Formats: sequence, C-alpha cells, structure tokens
Amino acid sequence: MAEASDNNPSPLRIGGLLFPNFELLDMFGPLEMFSLLGVERASISMIAQKVGPVPAAMGGDGPLGPRVMADHGFADAPKLDVLLVPGGFGTFSELENEAMLSYLRARAQDTPLIASVCTGSALLAKAGLLDGLRATSNKQVFSLARAQSDKVDWVESARWVDAGRIVTSSGVSAGTDMALAIISRLLGEEAAEQAAVAAEYIWHRNPDEDPFADHLDELAKQMGLTD
Amino acid sequence: MAEASDNNPSPLRIGGLLFPNFELLDMFGPLEMFSLLGVERASISMIAQKVGPVPAAMGGDGPLGPRVMADHGFADAPKLDVLLVPGGFGTFSELENEAMLSYLRARAQDTPLIASVCTGSALLAKAGLLDGLRATSNKQVFSLARAQSDKVDWVESARWVDAGRIVTSSGVSAGTDMALAIISRLLGEEAAEQAAVAAEYIWHRNPDEDPFADHLDELAKQMGLTD
Repeated sequence: MAEASDNNPSPLRIGGLLFPNFELLDMFGPLEMFSLLGVERASISMIAQKVGPVPAAMGGDGPLGPRVMADHGFADAPKLDVLLVPGGFGTFSELENEAMLSYLRARAQDTPLIASVCTGSALLAKAGLLDGLRATSNKQVFSLARAQSDKVDWVESARWVDAGRIVTSSGVSAGTDMALAIISRLLGEEAAEQAAVAAEYIWHRNPDEDPFADHLDELAKQMGLTD
Repeated sequence: MAEASDNNPSPLRIGGLLFPNFELLDMFGPLEMFSLLGVERASISMIAQKVGPVPAAMGGDGPLGPRVMADHGFADAPKLDVLLVPGGFGTFSELENEAMLSYLRARAQDTPLIASVCTGSALLAKAGLLDGLRATSNKQVFSLARAQSDKVDWVESARWVDAGRIVTSSGVSAGTDMALAIISRLLGEEAAEQAAVAAEYIWHRNPDEDPFADHLDELAKQMGLTD
C-alpha cells in the first residue's frame, strides 16, 4: 500500500462496492475525496455482484434513483488497498445475500483496509468481520447493525470509529469525514487537507464528536426494528 | 411546481446534467438531499448529450473515474422543475460544446429553476444565462467563470447566491448546502431539515459565509488562467 513516506508510491487502489438501493452520498462523498488525490495517488474501481448499472436509493424501499456502472463483478474484481462499503435501504436485501457476505469475508483476508459508511457496518457485522472490534453505524437505524452481532463493541456516539483494518462511520455525510481521516492516515495530513480545501469541504476532524447521536434509532422505532 | 402549501403536490422533477469529467460530489451531494425527499416528493432524471455511461473526474484532465448512466439524451430529456448543473475539469470542454450551450439556453426558457455547482456557473455564463444577475463559482478557479461574461455581478465571497430562477454555488461541497436551501424554498424548511438530519449532514445555512474565499484563484494562477 502507498505510504506517505514513499517518494514514488503506487496509487491507492480504492474499490467502491455497489448494490441496488445503495445510498448515493455514502459512496460519492468518500470517492470525491479519493478522486481529488488525482490518478497518480489513487485509482477507483466500481464493483458489484455483476457488471452493469446499479441503481441508487431514492430515500426508501420504492422506485430507485440514478444508476452507477459497476465495471467489475465479484468474480473479476481487482485487488484493493481500500474497500468502501456504503449503506442505504438496499442493506436489508444484502444482509440476506450470501454472495455479498462471502465477498466481504474474502476481502477481509486480502484487503488492508475496509471502510463502511452508514448501514454498511451492518453488512460487515453480519459477515462476522466486526466481532471483537469497536464500530459505529447510521444513527437513526442503529439497531439494524446492532442486531447482526452481539460480539461487536457498538459505539452509539461517534462520527466514525477507527479499529485499524476496519473503519466504520456513522450515517451518509459522516463517510466523507472518515475518508479524509483515512487519506490522512495513508498519505499524510497535508493530502487530506488539500482534498478538503479543493472540495471546499468543512472537514469535521473529531471522530468522537457526533452531532446526530441524539437521533438514535428514531427511524428504527418507526420501522419496528427495535424492541 | 410543487409548493409547500400544496396538500398533494406533484413530485419535484429534478434533472442532473452529466458530461465527461464532471465532479462527483457536485452532482451527488445535491442529489442525495433531493433523493431523501422520497419518490412522493421528488424524481431524479439523469441527462447528458447522449444516453449511456458518463465518466466522472479523477481530480484532473487525465484518466477518468466512476461512470454514471445518462438515461436521457438532450433530445428526449423530460421537462424539469430543477436542472442541476455540476462543474469539474470537464467544464473546459463543455464551454466549447455548442450542443451543451444550446441545451442550457433552451432549459432556461422552460425550467423554473437552474442550479449550478462549482464551475457549472461558467457554463451558465457562457450560455448568457447569468447576464445581469449576481452569481458565484468555484473559489480556486473563479477566473474561469468570470472570463465567460463581464455582464455578470460576480460575487467572490459566497457559499451560494440565490438570484431567483438561477442559483449558483461555490465549489463542490457548497452545492449540498445550496440544495438544502432550494428544498427549503420549494418544499419548506422542515423538509430540508429532515433531509439534512437523515443524511447526518451539518448544514451550513448562511449563503454569505464562505470559509474558502481566501483561496480565490489559487488553482487558476497555477493553470495560467489569470492575468
């Protein structure tokens, strides 16, 4: 993997994991920051179970939104330095998709860093990848992640949680802050600062400051996901 | 167009305008907020010169990034309530694309609201749509927009500028704040507040507060775009 100390490091190989009804900003907030590193420092591969267009969420379980091309299926996906796992309403289906869970377990063996946004951490928990680790998830449906494993140290109030090889963020926009923290770790703080300024993004740097923690499970209660 | 006072308004018809080398977050920050309105309050159409996948920027003029499907070409694009015009390095090519400029001029006739992000305002200025109006643009390449028309009241320090039928935002992330302001105008402040909270997004509500104004033309100078 590229390191800040290298004079001429290989580009970071970033993979964006698509599935039907994924949340747009979970994916493209982080990928914007990685894209701003430029092709000398980062490459992005879009991966799904099968090659082809994958529709994003439109705020619910109904009709879907913009479609993003998956250029690789699970079978031919490249090796990665960072795998980005978004959330969204599609998470519910993917929790029952053995091909998805198998892909995540396999990548946990050969990928130095897996990063989830929003309910993406529910998928990682279901795959057993968070057992014994600290992790967080979308605030309003926190119970969805919690229900996947009682062996995870679930952190209710956190913008993101860095557990080393796995980093989990809170809902949607929190993924962008997490991505900048990952860039800072892998390529140095200056690289992250430059990306944030280029995107005119007000970076929230403190992982423990969570302005949305008081909305815990508000949506989960409406959906009957809690006791 | 849907209004906050309607009991059963039609969904807002949002159009996202794609072109090669567009900036990912210019598009998907705003579309995330519109998508969270749900299909009863918003629909999203992805439009480009021609139907098919359109590659996003990777921080420069070189190889491109993730591809997003355009479901409509200019010839068959639906009527819209809001047209979203992103920026990115692809702006340079589109400034010379008469089909793009014609499409923008035509939409200015039949679309109640056109919203640009980043260097998207350079395209609107080149099409003559900003003449006589206040407008802003990406901070670091501000001169690119300014060079397209001297009949625009260019505002150097603004997160976004609401000129009525046309709203222009500053670079990349500023588009998300602008989108919430547009939702607030069209559907009421509560709808915007709900979308921001659902996205766990810290909404910057003041259009006049621009934390990046002191980076004016930093990139334009490097690129030789300024005198």
